[in-house]
Amino acid sequence: MFTGLSAFPLTPVTPAGFDEHGFIRILERITSAGVDSIGVLGSTGSYAYLTRSQRSHISGIAKSHAGNIPVMICVGAVSTDEVLRLADDAQAAGADALLLPPVSYQTLRDDEVFGVFETLTQYVSVPVCIYDNPGTTHFEFSDELHGRIATLPGIKSVKIPGVPPSPEDALARVKRLKAKLPEGVTVGISGDASAANGLNAGCEVWYSVCGGLFPHVAKEMTDAAARGDRERVVQLSERLQPLWDLFRKHGGSIRVMAAAAGVLGLTEADCLPRPLRPLSADDLADVAAVISRLGLR
Amino acid sequence: MFTGLSAFPLTPVTPAGFDEHGFIRILERITSAGVDSIGVLGSTGSYAYLTRSQRSHISGIAKSHAGNIPVMICVGAVSTDEVLRLADDAQAAGADALLLPPVSYQTLRDDEVFGVFETLTQYVSVPVCIYDNPGTTHFEFSDELHGRIATLPGIKSVKIPGVPPSPEDALARVKRLKAKLPEGVTVGISGDASAANGLNAGCEVWYSVCGGLFPHVAKEMTDAAARGDRERVVQLSERLQPLWDLFRKHGGSIRVMAAAAGVLGLTEADCLPRPLRPLSADDLADVAAVISRLGLR
Repeated sequence: MFTGLSAFPLTPVTPAGFDEHGFIRILERITSAGVDSIGVLGSTGSYAYLTRSQRSHISGIAKSHAGNIPVMICVGAVSTDEVLRLADDAQAAGADALLLPPVSYQTLRDDEVFGVFETLTQYVSVPVCIYDNPGTTHFEFSDELHGRIATLPGIKSVKIPGVPPSPEDALARVKRLKAKLPEGVTVGISGDASAANGLNAGCEVWYSVCGGLFPHVAKEMTDAAARGDRERVVQLSERLQPLWDLFRKHGGSIRVMAAAAGVLGLTEADCLPRPLRPLSADDLADVAAVISRLGLR
Repeated sequence: MFTGLSAFPLTPVTPAGFDEHGFIRILERITSAGVDSIGVLGSTGSYAYLTRSQRSHISGIAKSHAGNIPVMICVGAVSTDEVLRLADDAQAAGADALLLPPVSYQTLRDDEVFGVFETLTQYVSVPVCIYDNPGTTHFEFSDELHGRIATLPGIKSVKIPGVPPSPEDALARVKRLKAKLPEGVTVGISGDASAANGLNAGCEVWYSVCGGLFPHVAKEMTDAAARGDRERVVQLSERLQPLWDLFRKHGGSIRVMAAAAGVLGLTEADCLPRPLRPLSADDLADVAAVISRLGLR
C-alpha cells in the first residue's frame, strides 16, 4: 500500500462540530477515483485539532467507506502515551497502517524521536510510516535518523516534505535518503508542489493533499510516473501551478482545501476547526476561479 | 497576583504516571517560600504531555496545597474547543487566573490568535495572562497584537520570552511593548537567564522556572527588583549563571529542572513524560554539582 497515490482528505469541522456527511462525500470522491490508499487524519485531516474520541469515530467512518482501499491513520500526539492510545483506537477501527509524526512541544532530541517510533512499532501489529513534516512538527530529521528508525520492524515508508526545485538536486536528495533505508521501505513525497519533482526523482508514492479532493488529476500524475513518463508528470504539475500558488499564498494547503471543499458543495464554506479560520470572500473567489479554470474534479 | 515572583513548578511524570507525592513536595517548597503566585501546568509543568483529566486532577492538587497563594493554570491546547474545556476544568478546580499560549499546529495568523483570546475571555470569569513563548508555540507575537489582545476585558498580564542582553535594548523592548498595553496590564519576564535584565527593564513579574524549584533565590531577586536595587538583581542573576548555562546546554530548562528535582530527592531521577528523556548520568552529575556549589534550595 506504500506506492502510487495516497490521498489525504480534509476532515471538515464546522462550528457545529465534525461534519460527518461532508467527510463521507469527500471519501466517496476519493474511493470512486480508485486511489491506492487513503491517509486519514493527516495534517490536512486536522488530527491535531480533534479529541481522541473524534479521531476514533472518524477512523471508523473512513474504514467503512473505503471498500478495499487500504487506510492509513495518523496517530500523532505530543505524548507517547497518547500515541499508544490512538494506536489502540486506530487498530480497533481497522487501520491498515499508521502514520506517525514526531509532534513536538519541547524541542525533541534524536534519541527521543527514535524512542517514540521504537515504542510504537513494538506495540502495534500494522505497518508504520514515518511522517517527516518539519513545518508542523518543528522537528528536523536527518537522513541518518530516518535510516535508523527505518530498520525497526514494521516501518514501511517515509513521508518526506518537499524536495529541492531542481530535478538534479531532487534526485540527489532522494538517492541520499534511499541509501540509508533498508530494502522495501518506500519514500513518499508530500508538499504537493514538489510532487512531480519527487516522483521523477524516484519517490514511489505521493502522499497527496491534492489527491484528497481532486483524485483524478493526482492519479494521472502517479500513473504517468509509474509508466516512466517523466515529461507528462511535469506537464501535469505545471498545469496545476495556480493551485500550488494558492497553497503558497495561504501558508499551506489546509485553508485552500477547506475553501475548495466548500466551493465544490461538499461541505459548508466554514469547515475548519478553530482557531483556524476560513479564507476571506475575495480569497475564496480566487479558489473558485482556479477550480473552474483548471476544471478540477 | 500579576506582580512579584510567580513560580512555575515541574509536573513530575514517572514511567508509572503522574507522581502526585513528588508534585506535592515541589509545591510545598514553593508555598513555604512565600512566592506571590504559582503557575501550574506551564511548559515546564508539561501541560502539553498530559490528558485533560490529568490536567484537571493536577490543578485540584495545586489549589488544595497552595493555601492563600493564587494559582494560575495553563489552558493551552491546539484546538479552541479544547481550550474552553480546559478552562471549564481549571475554573472548577478554583483557578485564580488562566494562562493561554497560542499552541499551533498549522501556522496561525494574527486574527486566529486574537480569536482564541477573544473566545476564552468571553467564556471565563477569571483573569487571563497571554503566554508568549515562540520556542514552544512557534507563534511570534508582534507588540501590536499583544496590544490588541490586551484590550480584551479580563487580560491582566503578558508573559514574554527573554529580553535582549543589553540593559538599554531590554529597556527599549519593554517600553515599546508597554506603550501598546492598557493601564493595569503587567509585563512578566520569562526565560530565566533574562530575568534580571527584564526586571530591571520594568517587568513587574518574573514567571520563573527557577522559582518553581529554587524559590528562595528567585524571591531574593524579585524582592531586590521591587525595592529598586538593580545592582543586587544583576548580582543574584550572575551568581546563577551556571544554572542558566545548563538550561542553554540542554535546549531549555525542563530536562535540567527534572534532573534537579531528582537530585534534591523530591522525585525519581526519571520524571519526564515520554517522549522526553532524562539527562545522561554525566549531565546529571553536572546538575548535582551546580546545585551543591551554588547552595540552591
